[in-house]
Amino acid sequence: MDEGLLAPVRAGSRTARLLGDDAWIRAMVDVELALARSQARLGLIPPEALRAITSAVRESRFDIRAIAEASRGAANPVVAFVEHLHRMVAVVDPVAADYVHCGSTSQDILDTATMMISARVLTEIIADLDGIVDDLARLAQRFRDTPIAGRTLAMHAVPTTFGAKVAGWMHGVLDARDRLHRLRMTGLPIQLGGAAGTVASYVEWARTGNSMLANASAAEIYERLAGELAGDLGLALPAMPWHTVRTPIADLAGALATTSGALGKFAVDVITLSRTEILELSEPTAAGRGESSAMPQKRNPVLSTMIRTASLQVPALVSILFGAMLAEDERPAGAWHAEWQALRECLLLVGGAAQTAAELAVGLTADAGRMRSNLESTRGQLVSERLSIRLAPLLGRAVAKKTLQAAAFMACDTGRAFADILAEDPVVSAHLTAEQIAELLRPEGYLGAAPAFVDRMLDRR
Amino acid sequence: MDEGLLAPVRAGSRTARLLGDDAWIRAMVDVELALARSQARLGLIPPEALRAITSAVRESRFDIRAIAEASRGAANPVVAFVEHLHRMVAVVDPVAADYVHCGSTSQDILDTATMMISARVLTEIIADLDGIVDDLARLAQRFRDTPIAGRTLAMHAVPTTFGAKVAGWMHGVLDARDRLHRLRMTGLPIQLGGAAGTVASYVEWARTGNSMLANASAAEIYERLAGELAGDLGLALPAMPWHTVRTPIADLAGALATTSGALGKFAVDVITLSRTEILELSEPTAAGRGESSAMPQKRNPVLSTMIRTASLQVPALVSILFGAMLAEDERPAGAWHAEWQALRECLLLVGGAAQTAAELAVGLTADAGRMRSNLESTRGQLVSERLSIRLAPLLGRAVAKKTLQAAAFMACDTGRAFADILAEDPVVSAHLTAEQIAELLRPEGYLGAAPAFVDRMLDRR
Amino acid sequence: MDEGLLAPVRAGSRTARLLGDDAWIRAMVDVELALARSQARLGLIPPEALRAITSAVRESRFDIRAIAEASRGAANPVVAFVEHLHRMVAVVDPVAADYVHCGSTSQDILDTATMMISARVLTEIIADLDGIVDDLARLAQRFRDTPIAGRTLAMHAVPTTFGAKVAGWMHGVLDARDRLHRLRMTGLPIQLGGAAGTVASYVEWARTGNSMLANASAAEIYERLAGELAGDLGLALPAMPWHTVRTPIADLAGALATTSGALGKFAVDVITLSRTEILELSEPTAAGRGESSAMPQKRNPVLSTMIRTASLQVPALVSILFGAMLAEDERPAGAWHAEWQALRECLLLVGGAAQTAAELAVGLTADAGRMRSNLESTRGQLVSERLSIRLAPLLGRAVAKKTLQAAAFMACDTGRAFADILAEDPVVSAHLTAEQIAELLRPEGYLGAAPAFVDRMLDRR
Amino acid sequence: MDEGLLAPVRAGSRTARLLGDDAWIRAMVDVELALARSQARLGLIPPEALRAITSAVRESRFDIRAIAEASRGAANPVVAFVEHLHRMVAVVDPVAADYVHCGSTSQDILDTATMMISARVLTEIIADLDGIVDDLARLAQRFRDTPIAGRTLAMHAVPTTFGAKVAGWMHGVLDARDRLHRLRMTGLPIQLGGAAGTVASYVEWARTGNSMLANASAAEIYERLAGELAGDLGLALPAMPWHTVRTPIADLAGALATTSGALGKFAVDVITLSRTEILELSEPTAAGRGESSAMPQKRNPVLSTMIRTASLQVPALVSILFGAMLAEDERPAGAWHAEWQALRECLLLVGGAAQTAAELAVGLTADAGRMRSNLESTRGQLVSERLSIRLAPLLGRAVAKKTLQAAAFMACDTGRAFADILAEDPVVSAHLTAEQIAELLRPEGYLGAAPAFVDRMLDRR
Repeated sequence: MDEGLLAPVRAGSRTARLLGDDAWIRAMVDVELALARSQARLGLIPPEALRAITSAVRESRFDIRAIAEASRGAANPVVAFVEHLHRMVAVVDPVAADYVHCGSTSQDILDTATMMISARVLTEIIADLDGIVDDLARLAQRFRDTPIAGRTLAMHAVPTTFGAKVAGWMHGVLDARDRLHRLRMTGLPIQLGGAAGTVASYVEWARTGNSMLANASAAEIYERLAGELAGDLGLALPAMPWHTVRTPIADLAGALATTSGALGKFAVDVITLSRTEILELSEPTAAGRGESSAMPQKRNPVLSTMIRTASLQVPALVSILFGAMLAEDERPAGAWHAEWQALRECLLLVGGAAQTAAELAVGLTADAGRMRSNLESTRGQLVSERLSIRLAPLLGRAVAKKTLQAAAFMACDTGRAFADILAEDPVVSAHLTAEQIAELLRPEGYLGAAPAFVDRMLDRR
Repeated sequence: MDEGLLAPVRAGSRTARLLGDDAWIRAMVDVELALARSQARLGLIPPEALRAITSAVRESRFDIRAIAEASRGAANPVVAFVEHLHRMVAVVDPVAADYVHCGSTSQDILDTATMMISARVLTEIIADLDGIVDDLARLAQRFRDTPIAGRTLAMHAVPTTFGAKVAGWMHGVLDARDRLHRLRMTGLPIQLGGAAGTVASYVEWARTGNSMLANASAAEIYERLAGELAGDLGLALPAMPWHTVRTPIADLAGALATTSGALGKFAVDVITLSRTEILELSEPTAAGRGESSAMPQKRNPVLSTMIRTASLQVPALVSILFGAMLAEDERPAGAWHAEWQALRECLLLVGGAAQTAAELAVGLTADAGRMRSNLESTRGQLVSERLSIRLAPLLGRAVAKKTLQAAAFMACDTGRAFADILAEDPVVSAHLTAEQIAELLRPEGYLGAAPAFVDRMLDRR
Repeated sequence: MDEGLLAPVRAGSRTARLLGDDAWIRAMVDVELALARSQARLGLIPPEALRAITSAVRESRFDIRAIAEASRGAANPVVAFVEHLHRMVAVVDPVAADYVHCGSTSQDILDTATMMISARVLTEIIADLDGIVDDLARLAQRFRDTPIAGRTLAMHAVPTTFGAKVAGWMHGVLDARDRLHRLRMTGLPIQLGGAAGTVASYVEWARTGNSMLANASAAEIYERLAGELAGDLGLALPAMPWHTVRTPIADLAGALATTSGALGKFAVDVITLSRTEILELSEPTAAGRGESSAMPQKRNPVLSTMIRTASLQVPALVSILFGAMLAEDERPAGAWHAEWQALRECLLLVGGAAQTAAELAVGLTADAGRMRSNLESTRGQLVSERLSIRLAPLLGRAVAKKTLQAAAFMACDTGRAFADILAEDPVVSAHLTAEQIAELLRPEGYLGAAPAFVDRMLDRR
Repeated sequence: MDEGLLAPVRAGSRTARLLGDDAWIRAMVDVELALARSQARLGLIPPEALRAITSAVRESRFDIRAIAEASRGAANPVVAFVEHLHRMVAVVDPVAADYVHCGSTSQDILDTATMMISARVLTEIIADLDGIVDDLARLAQRFRDTPIAGRTLAMHAVPTTFGAKVAGWMHGVLDARDRLHRLRMTGLPIQLGGAAGTVASYVEWARTGNSMLANASAAEIYERLAGELAGDLGLALPAMPWHTVRTPIADLAGALATTSGALGKFAVDVITLSRTEILELSEPTAAGRGESSAMPQKRNPVLSTMIRTASLQVPALVSILFGAMLAEDERPAGAWHAEWQALRECLLLVGGAAQTAAELAVGLTADAGRMRSNLESTRGQLVSERLSIRLAPLLGRAVAKKTLQAAAFMACDTGRAFADILAEDPVVSAHLTAEQIAELLRPEGYLGAAPAFVDRMLDRR
């Protein structure tokens, strides 16, 4: 159905393998097993039942398509999945089968499975961001002092350094990594609530048998069982069920959108600087990459194009996730269900974008010579701001601006050097010699703290 | 990867089968074949080449995963697809292979394939909407005059009829059908433009060989070749290529969102009227449908839940499509690419929602007795507006309102019948007898044109 | 509160004046007056009442802030507005006051007012689009044959003409205009339904007095009264009330997003071609426009920046409108209310963008020399596709591609002319002379139907 | 233009007063003053200049409309604003005027002003959330043990307590408060970067005069000047400028959407439980609130309707903010500009929703009797899950489910008590007496940890 043919940014990515229907089935199996283990540890189900479930699961295969189609019966895949699981275990041990999914509800299984998958995907994304940061750090260091035209509203503005530009990309990626990391560490909780988030069914089970919790309070049962489950799965333990308090999803939405944005910023800059007329950057080459079937000269910036593609989709997808917070009652009729595919697609796109950006960062080629020739193409106008600051105290700000603007427009129209035109201007030459003007218009002399910002980002890393 | 496990609304649907990666490969094959046929008909490629291509395609299978992963090389799947196709044909006839994809470009193939698929999916959706309209028509007719509480801001307002409610659903579905139909008939064009939308490559091919178009003008070549292709595929013929003029995608976005909204309106009403406390409607039962694994009494409104799930996602997805209209240059670096998956998901969701809504419409059960008991539950207050209109000329609008409001609040607090309280009110009883009050408060007497609106929708159908 | 300080694209625009709170108050007054006139014409209210209402309105002012704050009482502004209106009329004629808003409901007034305002705004936008089409037509004609580099994925691809590029902009704008025009003509209906869309209250009023409709059927009363109102306001007459069938809003959403996208495409192209390194286009100059306070050389493409700003917001805003179609019951608790501000902002942004684009189109300057020097900057590579088509039959497609690719990469690395490198290649020179190569690489020789597409768009206009 | 007539949720709110165009002008003045103070403290501008600027600002008024319209010249309001400011100061002291906006750029002023305003608004929202938490805490405590039907997919599921439901609302609101608070404390930075984020202009100014920083490194100048400014304004000090690294905006987007979702969840529950057929909750009454002009009996849940209205809009608006992270170059042509209005509207809506939710929380009325009668309306079915857990070990899970399901469906069809039907069932009565069945079906006996979750949320507060 979807191998990524229409989404090259994620086709064949590491995270795509963690996000297929099969991965969700496996994760639901993992949750059911962890629940059974937790319940067995607390004496809530017999050890034989756990053994039978474990062994049945090990040797069986799930018919994903059949489960998917049967999911229409309950509007969620868990009911059909549990029926399959029940049958599998019943083959091995009919008694044990009744200990499958004990006291549980669809949402507990699916939400916890989703958190497990999210945790795995976040781990991969963070690893890619780490790699990107390292590669960008090398690049930033190398081009720490290399002048490049700073551009605003598409026009040359003032000089900066290519290193500072890269430091800006690092800035965004580091911010994203921090947010993902915080979420990965403490923000992905198990779900354990039973049908309406009261855990009554788990409590009932605990009290029915001869478990060590037969006389425990409901609060204690929640604490013990949820604690076991969270520990088993390496997920956070929530203070209470979050069936209709979707903060973990909202946090994922925010962090993924931030990551998508940070990578997208990197991508749009690479695309711009790869333009035929600019050509300051080139994407890493690889066999067949960026080629056109028809135009032999083409080396398209395909990696950044793919990243941008993801970044153009993620904001809308996260709006679905934020919208799904309007979850009426103890389980809503639709809002919960609207999260699943949107979250998967977000994880896929951001996972694919991160892996693609890692490829891009490691092999990006910068052409300092081209940066130089581009910034010189306006023959000094790039540093006109410096002159305006110098001349303002001498001429008054208004006169200074007017004088420089006139000179700049004349430079544009005639193609002459800005310095020459200024040197001929009596107003300017009354204060500055031709040599002083030339010196003031050197891009290297007007880089501000651009190189220092590289150091700051290298330190932050 | 995606059998619909996380999207039950579309799992196993008819349209899902038209929208997998395999369907796109098949559609791209169809476009290449149609292009080759068109070129052969115009003498632009030799008939043997067409035969070889046709036969190679007939006997071959494409490795979808490999093509998907190779799509990363060009940021689109067509380059890798054409290479596979080229190799396939070369096995049969190496010379013919060079006539594959003649003069063409990735976007021509993919955009046309997308339009073909969209056309097929729209046909299915329209068929489902036709069925829904028919089933709703029967329902509307049957309950044309059956009183039901009209509800606004969640509260009983004034009476309407259940037929009129159904007529409202028909109204929305008919509107959607009209828009889809118009688009299906004239709004889905082929794409034929070559690398930058000038058709220069097709023209060059036409002039290179001994074709009947060797001396034709470029405009004529476009007209002939594009005309053949459009005719072959049953798609519209655009005045010029639309590589970066994405109106057809925008029109699809608008029509699909409108359909999603119309079906979603139907669904949210069914969900509301299925509530345990209201229970005026029941979804059609089926084995296993709407059941809970844990709660035996449950018959959840799962069909409408699934429809609503789709409707909660489609608006955000179409915002991606509208956003992708910002397509810079002759082909943008990312915007075009962002359309593909978002459009597929929209088609999937609306296709699934339409099929689900057809199931819902055909089997929806309405309980007129329950409608009656609910509307009587406030013991006459539902028709208070009628009294206010009658009393206003007699008491003045302000006094009338105040009097009725006080009576209504007393009715709420005491649970007594509204009519009784009013009859005891000297201000009211000065003008109306108890019998008159009772008569005025009969819901049947205050249905306005609700039944007539049923007739209007039955006529419109 | 909002004079456009944070939205320069719409600050002070013609349409902004049609979209303020004051405009909505005026439109609600217009609807109430039209309703009163319609009712008076049908004998449903006395002529004196109409006179009193008309005269009261003429001489009064509404306290917009007070009404806005009082709107919190009903979650909509109409209840408070009608109370103000009632008081105004009561001052003139207490009896007449009771004929204000006769049989009506908040939604009838607000929806109809919104349609009136939308109609006015669409008229303005269509006028701007007409102007844009005319100006672009002139530009397209003038540069019909002027070669420019066609660019795909940010890189030079093949030549096209600047005229064809402009024709593409026209294509999008004409599509948008058609959709707006269709909607303006037949898609903006009055709303007349009463509390729950049954028109029972209007019917009750009609039957209460001695009107000519006292014995008419409810259907007839709807037809007559709605017909009068629609005719009076110049809006469409709907088959039934559309309180919760929000197709007109969805149609507006689709048409506005399409317009926003078409204008945005124009804008992103202008921004790109204005880049310092490209400079093929310049925005019209005006005093102070595009200047920087600090950088004297700056002439920023501010008009296209503003248009793009609008286009980046509209898709998300329309997703709110499509989402609001999920309108439960006979009036939803929130969805209807979510439309108002989102629709206003869409109209504001598209209105502002259209006016800004008209300014841009009328004064846009194209530099054919710069187009020429840019397309020559890769010294012939731009037309490499033509060579590949010519050489494919001679060398086989694979060899041809490989040969040309090697030559192109050498040209990039050495900066030599593509033609020279090819002429030295024995494989190529076996088939083509240096003169033939040079001739084949002339951009003018590979324009395809680009000029013809200009003619087609001029004809379509 | 916009007093909130179309957005009652924010009409006249405390935060609306912080978010008008006038507030932005004031905030820009504050930033310019703080910059001048910082520069004066570091000896970068003369103390007389600071005095003149301060005094000029104190006595002047800005023509907001004129500045808004002039903002079209630069596509941002700062250039026009600074010109006005310059003129104001020049009237007082022409020399001092040239020290206005010294070394600064539009984005520094506008971004910093936006952060100041956001900080103020967040403070207000947090205060409202604190109040909501307190009021909900009281409610949760009071109804800690009060049974209510837990509802899933619109149907009765199992019992919970109203206190637990309120604890769920608290859960969401506390999560939101935490995120807003974290952001308020450390996530809202000043912006200080100059034209392209290098601070070269500030450095140039520092070195031009006789300041104490005349010989400082650029890094040191940034540290000192930015440190002064951040300290003066009470905002965070960023490691480097964030002109095109929009994490602070993304963080605001995420936190505001999370808040909107948490409040929206509260609202949709209140709307549902206010339904005429359910009536377990009533919104606080106030003069004129929730009334209908035409239907005297109406008391609409208008507060929750308004909150929901906000929550239906915010997700789409934040998608604009996340999308604007794709900020090419050192300042993008449109993306930055697209943030302003979308962020303002988000702040307005969330601010209005929080204030409205505070009104709702403080006066919400719960009807325990009605909760009781509703949960008893299905005569015992609500607790069927408990029976299924008890009977599963006795009958096997499958038989238990089938037996109970049959009994439940019979109960539905006949309206008889679930317990009675079960007691007559030989399969069930073989294991349980009628008294045991009755006891097991008491809602109070199946509340799980619902009351304990109340305690946990009270503790968390």
